[in-house]
Amino acid sequence: MGTDHGVQGHQGQVRPADSQFADRVRESFGRQQVMTTIGAKLTHVAPGEIDIWLPYDPTLTQQHGFMHGGIVATIADSACGYAAYSLMPAGQAVLSIEFKINLLAPAQGEAFVARSRVVRAGRTITVCQADVMAIQDGVESRIATLVATIMGLRDRKDLNG
Amino acid sequence: MGTDHGVQGHQGQVRPADSQFADRVRESFGRQQVMTTIGAKLTHVAPGEIDIWLPYDPTLTQQHGFMHGGIVATIADSACGYAAYSLMPAGQAVLSIEFKINLLAPAQGEAFVARSRVVRAGRTITVCQADVMAIQDGVESRIATLVATIMGLRDRKDLNG
Amino acid sequence: MGTDHGVQGHQGQVRPADSQFADRVRESFGRQQVMTTIGAKLTHVAPGEIDIWLPYDPTLTQQHGFMHGGIVATIADSACGYAAYSLMPAGQAVLSIEFKINLLAPAQGEAFVARSRVVRAGRTITVCQADVMAIQDGVESRIATLVATIMGLRDRKDLNG
Amino acid sequence: MGTDHGVQGHQGQVRPADSQFADRVRESFGRQQVMTTIGAKLTHVAPGEIDIWLPYDPTLTQQHGFMHGGIVATIADSACGYAAYSLMPAGQAVLSIEFKINLLAPAQGEAFVARSRVVRAGRTITVCQADVMAIQDGVESRIATLVATIMGLRDRKDLNG
Repeated sequence: MGTDHGVQGHQGQVRPADSQFADRVRESFGRQQVMTTIGAKLTHVAPGEIDIWLPYDPTLTQQHGFMHGGIVATIADSACGYAAYSLMPAGQAVLSIEFKINLLAPAQGEAFVARSRVVRAGRTITVCQADVMAIQDGVESRIATLVATIMGLRDRKDLNG
Repeated sequence: MGTDHGVQGHQGQVRPADSQFADRVRESFGRQQVMTTIGAKLTHVAPGEIDIWLPYDPTLTQQHGFMHGGIVATIADSACGYAAYSLMPAGQAVLSIEFKINLLAPAQGEAFVARSRVVRAGRTITVCQADVMAIQDGVESRIATLVATIMGLRDRKDLNG
Repeated sequence: MGTDHGVQGHQGQVRPADSQFADRVRESFGRQQVMTTIGAKLTHVAPGEIDIWLPYDPTLTQQHGFMHGGIVATIADSACGYAAYSLMPAGQAVLSIEFKINLLAPAQGEAFVARSRVVRAGRTITVCQADVMAIQDGVESRIATLVATIMGLRDRKDLNG
Repeated sequence: MGTDHGVQGHQGQVRPADSQFADRVRESFGRQQVMTTIGAKLTHVAPGEIDIWLPYDPTLTQQHGFMHGGIVATIADSACGYAAYSLMPAGQAVLSIEFKINLLAPAQGEAFVARSRVVRAGRTITVCQADVMAIQDGVESRIATLVATIMGLRDRKDLNG
């Protein structure tokens, strides 16, 4: 049926609403305790683009020894959320309302990186996509792609970042 | 949890398994009667890449006069199915098993084009993505993105193409 | 990451915000010209629950003679949109922002019915699910399931219903 | 476009292909190291139906102190995978090829349970749905719903379970 009108987000042309966006992203990421728990790091922060890196960890695997799809989704979802957040004005909170992940290949490798970009930034709703790459011997191959719908919440004193 | 191992599909590097792929795609598209009914045309056929074009039609609209999201999905899903089909060996039939569409903006414009590409071509499962662009006064803007899972079926004499 | 807080929608317990909801749904459905074009009818309107019926039509088929997945999605998406709309206050407009459909079996049969219900009704975002049943010789079998995210828009004089 | 023909799975009528299904599920779950890491337990195993329980844990949270959506997806995806696996013949391996999760409400509560059921069991592809409930003071409320496509792999000596 369509969606809300809003500012179209284009890679390489995006101007963040808040010049302190990178600090806001890093501060909020630092509060995502699951990222510390699984060993994930924020390795790229640009307007509308975020990378999250995760080393292989046998304690996070499914039954065949690959990283569990839910863990792959965890870094891809956060990468999407922070790509959206990087373009929002200060004072908004960000929440994922849905995501779909296609698991393209087993999550095997030395490390993984989720690379997100904003597909479209609207007033209320932002759509982001993240590809997750496995890294082995310096070579990257795509193992998953995730498309997420992110909502920006204003005037929510109970939620910060 | 992962997925089946298979040949990775990369844009611009894809070699079709069947040199007659374009004829197969056009012949199968010609049998999709819904495409004739809604006025859709196949405007680009390359290995792993298909475009389907659709003019605006007030008889295909939702309550606000925009093209219905299901019609937008119809051309995007077929574009994905034929992108997958273009890489398959002759004699396979192709079926969508699921797709998600994010409707980024209202489907308003003079015409629409769904541009698909193969994300990953596996032995059994192929994942494709299509962007749908609205065209107005010669300018394109993205109104939707769809990611589909396509299955290739072998040895099904009851299903052709 | 979570989503907006709101009134939980439960089947059989839902109270619509607007007692004239059924009239609003029927009036808006009547403006969806694609429904007339494909021959779809509104056959059940209750708070948070909508059925849309569609006869088999060879002009709406894919290459194997089954109804096209996009047409199946068209009735399921509208059923979800109107389930959401039935619970909204008067004066809101409704737009689908995304849906995923799993195509469980070929869309073959004499007729099809999309049965939707609200999964959760929030202030801004409503999530709905529709099952699509094929009907053959009086027997129903499920051929698809669709989960949609619907947004309610207030104070949009350019969009009605 | 449709999907593969196969045995329709109905709740309450499902007969597993392997009478040892429960042992197979428990053995495979025991090898999902991520489940031990996050503290998840298998609390219900029936043909086509699995429950996975997870206590609230501040080390698995996002920036507002709710459980991260990716962790919610981790238990829901595994619940779906094992629901599918419970109906498969012995000797198959099971892999998720995609899932979509709608995050209906913040993941706050004392504990969470993902309850899955098979929507349709096919020869190659099984579709499952899981609802995730938050539990607080003995009351359950739904916080997420996930629909997954699961593939059964035969004759893969490199993958067990």
